[in-house]
Parts: sequence; structure tokens; C-alpha cells
Amino acid sequence: MEYDGSEFSGWQRLNKPGEPERRGEPTVQAALEQALSFVAGEGVEVVCAGRTDAGVHASAQVVHFDGPAQRDVRGWVLGTTSRLPPSVCVRWCVPVADDFHARFSARARRYRYSILNRAVRPALQRQYLSWERRPLDAAAMHRSAQALVGEHDFSAFRTVHCQAPHARRDLQFIAVERQGDVVTVEVQANAFLHHMVRNIVGSLLPVGRGEQPEEWLGDLLAGRDRTVAGPTAPSAGLVFLGPRYPAQWGLPAEVEL
Amino acid sequence: MEYDGSEFSGWQRLNKPGEPERRGEPTVQAALEQALSFVAGEGVEVVCAGRTDAGVHASAQVVHFDGPAQRDVRGWVLGTTSRLPPSVCVRWCVPVADDFHARFSARARRYRYSILNRAVRPALQRQYLSWERRPLDAAAMHRSAQALVGEHDFSAFRTVHCQAPHARRDLQFIAVERQGDVVTVEVQANAFLHHMVRNIVGSLLPVGRGEQPEEWLGDLLAGRDRTVAGPTAPSAGLVFLGPRYPAQWGLPAEVEL
Repeated sequence: MEYDGSEFSGWQRLNKPGEPERRGEPTVQAALEQALSFVAGEGVEVVCAGRTDAGVHASAQVVHFDGPAQRDVRGWVLGTTSRLPPSVCVRWCVPVADDFHARFSARARRYRYSILNRAVRPALQRQYLSWERRPLDAAAMHRSAQALVGEHDFSAFRTVHCQAPHARRDLQFIAVERQGDVVTVEVQANAFLHHMVRNIVGSLLPVGRGEQPEEWLGDLLAGRDRTVAGPTAPSAGLVFLGPRYPAQWGLPAEVEL
Repeated sequence: MEYDGSEFSGWQRLNKPGEPERRGEPTVQAALEQALSFVAGEGVEVVCAGRTDAGVHASAQVVHFDGPAQRDVRGWVLGTTSRLPPSVCVRWCVPVADDFHARFSARARRYRYSILNRAVRPALQRQYLSWERRPLDAAAMHRSAQALVGEHDFSAFRTVHCQAPHARRDLQFIAVERQGDVVTVEVQANAFLHHMVRNIVGSLLPVGRGEQPEEWLGDLLAGRDRTVAGPTAPSAGLVFLGPRYPAQWGLPAEVEL
């Protein structure tokens, strides 16, 4: 699935299955389940690869659901999309084995965070950008971030509301790059803690502005203390680029319709 | 200036200067003049390089205005931007000679049109994309479009509402490219007729779909008959990339704030 999170209170449904959504708190999950249930002709509940917060986008969210309904690929993809709001669409679908699980089968997730780095706030693309007016040294941010690569306790970058049983995660890749006046942070891990990407970005910004030394990210990681790390970066710059699954599941990047 | 045209009824002010905007018909010009007038402390009227239609965006619109008010660059740029809606910002400003004219001094304008070419409609970036579900041959579109390069009568691509005294324009450059599932048409001319870019794109699409031969664009141009050309492509895919001025005016791409 692809969605623009701007108008959603996040991925996760806040109402009970089949009950109406909470007023003024639309969620992507509820929108998808409502559309899928219409196509399936029965109530459908879905499980996603990575729950996203309010205002966070996804270019390749993956979900699974169980049920007896048989529809062709066009029916699931185009039929469901036609019942979704303009900010959400289904990109592809395939039947999977019973033991596939969108969340537990995923071996990695990737996110991209984009920062417009110029004196004036964005007008175009403002739903997809955060904004930093002071000049950022993207190369310094990149070097600083490399201290996070590997399996570590990421408590320093975990929100107090995070419900994960432990904070150990394997961060496989992080790259900070500048293209014109946009600085992007792309990061992949086996899984993420709540607000982990935005908290990492929030701590990379002081390094980029030259207010903290490049060693700071490594020091924060080692200290495991959320209260001394940078603030949570705004949601608008964040896109979930999707999960990675083992080849055994044969999941496509896209299917022919 | 940069603006997201999604929520505007186009560039051109519909009310008289100083009078309230027409209800439900906000224009970029009225928003800018209101903000500039506040900063200037007096009524300001602006002239732009290229008027854009409803739903059309601009990444580098240029405007000029006359007046005695003296403010520093930060005042004009940041002060004005702070009075503009989130969908509009001022990128830079410089004092210019009295004989500079944002419209008449421009020697060229450039536009980009972006088409998402896949089976499912866009969710992300949908404000900035039009959508074609059938596969497009971008290389064929590119070859077909080259017949338009040069000085010609573009009556075939001119809306009936166009008020220009004649239809001769010098089309300096047109390129159709594919990047992944997005096909872009970038075009530069000394000036454009009303709907000219969207009408050219609307006629390139049947070529891309294989419904018309590559010679079609040249044939349409020679025939000068709007009624046989393709339909006007939707506004959402179109961005005004800005005007080009002779070097004598010393206009910057950007100024330090």
C-alpha cells in the first residue's frame, strides 16, 4: 500500500473492528479494513509490517489478512483502491501461505526522512518535508550516524510511550545525503522502536548545525538516556519505504494488473 | 516565489485591488499582494512572469512591483512569507531597475508536467502528478514532440479562451523522459499560449499509448486545428519552473538571508 499520512491519526485503528471510527481521528487501518471488507463481502482485519504515526507516510506498506473470500488480483487491488480515500491506494496483492505474517516475517524495515534545508519554509512538497533554516553539514551527520550501525540498545532514541519489551535492535544501514537543498536520512533496521527514526534525526540535526560534535550520536547511544538526546523530529518528513522479507515468500515489488 | 496551486483558483486576482477576494476563489496573486501590502505598509500590486491556472504549481515564479517602501531582504522575504498561507512562500528578492518587467523582460519560460504511469492511481504526491494507467512509450513521445521545436503557429494547442493576439511562439526545448513509473515532459518556450503545455501533453498521451503515430504532433501543429488535437491534460501534473531573463538584470537563483 501507499498512503499520504497527512490527514490520518496514524496507521493503527482506534475503534474496535466493525465499529465506527472515532470522530476526527481517521486511521489508515480503519480505512483499509472498511474497503477490504466491502470487496470481501465480510469483515476483514489486517496486520501491517510497520505501524506509522500520525502524519507519517508510506510508499510500500505491506499488510496481510486471512479469510475465505476469493477475488482476482484486479478485484483486490483496483476494487479496494476505488473504496479508499484519495490519500491511500493498494499497489499489489498476492496469495500467501498461512504461516506468512506481515509483521513477524519481515527481516528489515526501511525509512527515509527528508529535510528542506534553506532559509524559507517549504510551500511545494510541504507534506513530505520537515524544515531546517540553519545550514546542515550532511557529511558530518553521515559520519556521526555510523556509530549507530550494528546491534545495540537504542533506549536513547525510544519514546517513553514505547511498548516494546526491550530496546535491542539491529540497525543495518544509515546514510545521510544532500541533494540540492534537501537533506535525506535513510535508515534500515530489523525493526524500530516507537519514534526511533524521528529521535535519531532529532539528534543528528544539532550535529549538522555544528552544535554537537560528530561523536555525539555514539555517546547518546552508549548513555541510553532519552532525556539528553535531541527532540523528536516532526512527522512530515518521514516515509516508510517498506519491509524486506526472505525470498521464500516470493513477494513481488509489483504485480501486473 | 514557490507555491502549491492545489487550493488556488489560479494565479490571477479576480477581485479589484484592495477589495476582498471572491468567496471560495482564492488566488495566489491576491494572497501575495495582501502579504506584501502588509509588509510595505501600503497597497502593492504585482506583475508575474507567467500566470498559472487553477491547480498548477510554481517552483520559481518571479514577480515585480513598484513602490517607495524600503525594507531589507529579510523583511521582504521572511516578513512576507510569514503573512502567506502555508502553500505559498517567497524565495528571494532583489531591487531592480525601473525598466525591468517580470513579464516583458522574460525571454523564456519553462514548465514540467509529471505523469504517474501505473495501474493504480497515486496516493503519495497526488497533488503533483497526473495519472495514466495504460503503459506509455516515453521514447516515442519524445521523438514525436520534437516536431514542435522552433517558431510555429501553435493554434492547435491553444484553448478557445486564449486572449493572446497571435499564436506564434518559439518552442526552444521539449524532452519526454521516464524515471521509474513517472513520465515527465519538460518544455521551454519564449512564451506560452493559454493551456498550451497541457494541450501538448494531452496530444502526446495518445502517441505514448500507441493510439496515434509519432508523426501526429507534427501533423496537429501543421493543421492548426484545436478540435482534432488531444484533450487538455489535468492541471495537477504541471509545475512552472520559472522564467529566464537576460544576464543584464543580474537576477539570482537565490539570495543569502
